[in-house]
Amino acid sequence: MNTQNLVEPGLSSVDPLDRFYAVIPAGGVGTRLWPLSRAAAPKFLHDLTGSGSTLIRATYDRLEPLSGSKVLLVTGEAHREAVCRQLPEVADGNLVLETEPKDSGAAIGLAAAILYTRDPDTIMGSFAADQVISPVEKFQDSVREAIRTAATGKIVTIGIKPTHPSTGFGYIRMGAALNVKGAPSAHAVEEFVEKPSEEIAEKYLASGDYSWNAGMFVAPVELMLRHLKANEPTLYEGVMEMALAWDTPERVAVKNRVWPTLPKIAIDYAVAEPAADAGDVAVIPADFSWDDVGDFAAIARLSSAAENKNVKVIGEGARVFTEDSTGIVVTDTTRVIALIGIQDVVVVDTPDALLVTTRAHSQLVKKAVDGLKAQGETGVL
Amino acid sequence: MNTQNLVEPGLSSVDPLDRFYAVIPAGGVGTRLWPLSRAAAPKFLHDLTGSGSTLIRATYDRLEPLSGSKVLLVTGEAHREAVCRQLPEVADGNLVLETEPKDSGAAIGLAAAILYTRDPDTIMGSFAADQVISPVEKFQDSVREAIRTAATGKIVTIGIKPTHPSTGFGYIRMGAALNVKGAPSAHAVEEFVEKPSEEIAEKYLASGDYSWNAGMFVAPVELMLRHLKANEPTLYEGVMEMALAWDTPERVAVKNRVWPTLPKIAIDYAVAEPAADAGDVAVIPADFSWDDVGDFAAIARLSSAAENKNVKVIGEGARVFTEDSTGIVVTDTTRVIALIGIQDVVVVDTPDALLVTTRAHSQLVKKAVDGLKAQGETGVL
Repeated sequence: MNTQNLVEPGLSSVDPLDRFYAVIPAGGVGTRLWPLSRAAAPKFLHDLTGSGSTLIRATYDRLEPLSGSKVLLVTGEAHREAVCRQLPEVADGNLVLETEPKDSGAAIGLAAAILYTRDPDTIMGSFAADQVISPVEKFQDSVREAIRTAATGKIVTIGIKPTHPSTGFGYIRMGAALNVKGAPSAHAVEEFVEKPSEEIAEKYLASGDYSWNAGMFVAPVELMLRHLKANEPTLYEGVMEMALAWDTPERVAVKNRVWPTLPKIAIDYAVAEPAADAGDVAVIPADFSWDDVGDFAAIARLSSAAENKNVKVIGEGARVFTEDSTGIVVTDTTRVIALIGIQDVVVVDTPDALLVTTRAHSQLVKKAVDGLKAQGETGVL
Repeated sequence: MNTQNLVEPGLSSVDPLDRFYAVIPAGGVGTRLWPLSRAAAPKFLHDLTGSGSTLIRATYDRLEPLSGSKVLLVTGEAHREAVCRQLPEVADGNLVLETEPKDSGAAIGLAAAILYTRDPDTIMGSFAADQVISPVEKFQDSVREAIRTAATGKIVTIGIKPTHPSTGFGYIRMGAALNVKGAPSAHAVEEFVEKPSEEIAEKYLASGDYSWNAGMFVAPVELMLRHLKANEPTLYEGVMEMALAWDTPERVAVKNRVWPTLPKIAIDYAVAEPAADAGDVAVIPADFSWDDVGDFAAIARLSSAAENKNVKVIGEGARVFTEDSTGIVVTDTTRVIALIGIQDVVVVDTPDALLVTTRAHSQLVKKAVDGLKAQGETGVL
């Protein structure tokens, strides 16, 4: 196996902000947003909030003031064309195309390894392509604090201040303040905790010590790889082998050979949690609003689209008539849609599939996808 | 004006059943069944109950054992091709194509005039193309009684025994029994009454003297025309002028010239009500089940289609997944439709228009059509 020992960099004299490289993992189908989001056209390729930008484009634009063109993208091979159309700025060598899904450990591990191979002093920041954040200035301030904190030798997560006792997110328990220059919010992380019950979530909210884990983190690539090597040596060796071939003519051949052999594991288990146990993780509690647009109720909440009477209508070609109805219509067709006397409805209209549900049932849309799979309707999934 | 005096036939020695000629007026868009039923594809061209036949074909098949090929059809010029495809048996001369809608007075008046011109002894029976009746044997028995009663010089309506105090139908008040040979149910008609309030409808139901007016009637064409001449002389002259040219090479030219000049009036006002006042109307109270398939709630009730869990699914190419839902799906596409956690819903899916409503709001679908018209969406109406 063609790997090498990690070179631990000394304290770099370069401004930490100049060491920053953005990584955007763009994966996940967004099953609860079916039939809009699906394997062939996942969530991040849609403008779900009527902002005028797809989620992935908005993610790039949010990071670009910090990273410039230093952006590395990880996505499925099937999305190459659509992603390149959205982000023509991304160079070929910065586009990691997964031949099959291998969870976040492999995706982020390979990104870290490629960046390390190019420059071991790099500080990477990983930000999923399907989140909605505002205001962007507050986000960028938090990322700057995270970069400065990372430069002290930490894996730094950005924690979201909880607005309600959500049972849908993991939480981060904050420890002592870290007194990092230029990062006044930096705190140690005591532990990551899994999605809690509502009762426990309420205690978390009341204590003030907990943030939502939005899966955003900023870290020296060397530190990421050190923890990966310790916890998942097979995965570590695989990503290093691919990284060493990455900027050579062997890139595709090596990737195609090694990628399928990688273990499937989330970055949380492969790196973040063991690193927290080792005292290597910090948090920047953040004060911006954040949403992972998990279901159609979230779309209704976040969308700036006009209301047609009491129905929120999302879709460029929408031709909707409503009478005595409330809810949301999401359409990527130009069909005429009429709602009469129906309350709190969710209608999602696509050329080959239609979903009708209620806002309260938004979380159960996954059931439709499972059910359709069982019925053999894989063509629309 | 080229008309003639009506020849009053003597008591014919021909079996009344042999004098019978069926007339099927196929008009009306069925606005409350939008977007399935619409100007270009009205209600009668659909198989709304999953029986395997369109409503117009089922109407023909119900009458054919009584009329043989003696069937005259009145419909809009736009539906010529679709109707001929449904009823290839109907000869060219028995297809009356309206160049513009002129209400039932003109349609039935012209049918009566054509049949009178061919044979003044004819007894016509008019039966709308968009009704659902069962069992057909009971219907046919009632029509036979109606024909025998008509032969005594009556306009005979077939009254439907009310099953609930409907405020959506007109009613017929029954008078004394008529003692017609071979028509034991025949009674005089005291009067036709308009759609009542619920309170009054309940009194009608309780009295046992009232039937629903289903718009079916059987009458000597000569008697029809006599009342038409007395009440609507302009309409009478117009239909007679067309009828005299009907079986000549002038048919189309005369029709195209005269039809647009006809007054618009319902046959009820032009003939039935004045005839009832003159004591010329009888009723056969009928014991079959009858529905005019007025809205999607009716379709749900009448359809023999399979239920997908608790959702009734109508449509040949239907690909429906339901979870914790109740209601009805009508589709003439092959799109996948998923319903999740929505109750009592009505989903009507067509290639260019989608309706989502509830069973309780079925009667309000007309509002959508009016609203879409106001929005300029006439292409889907």
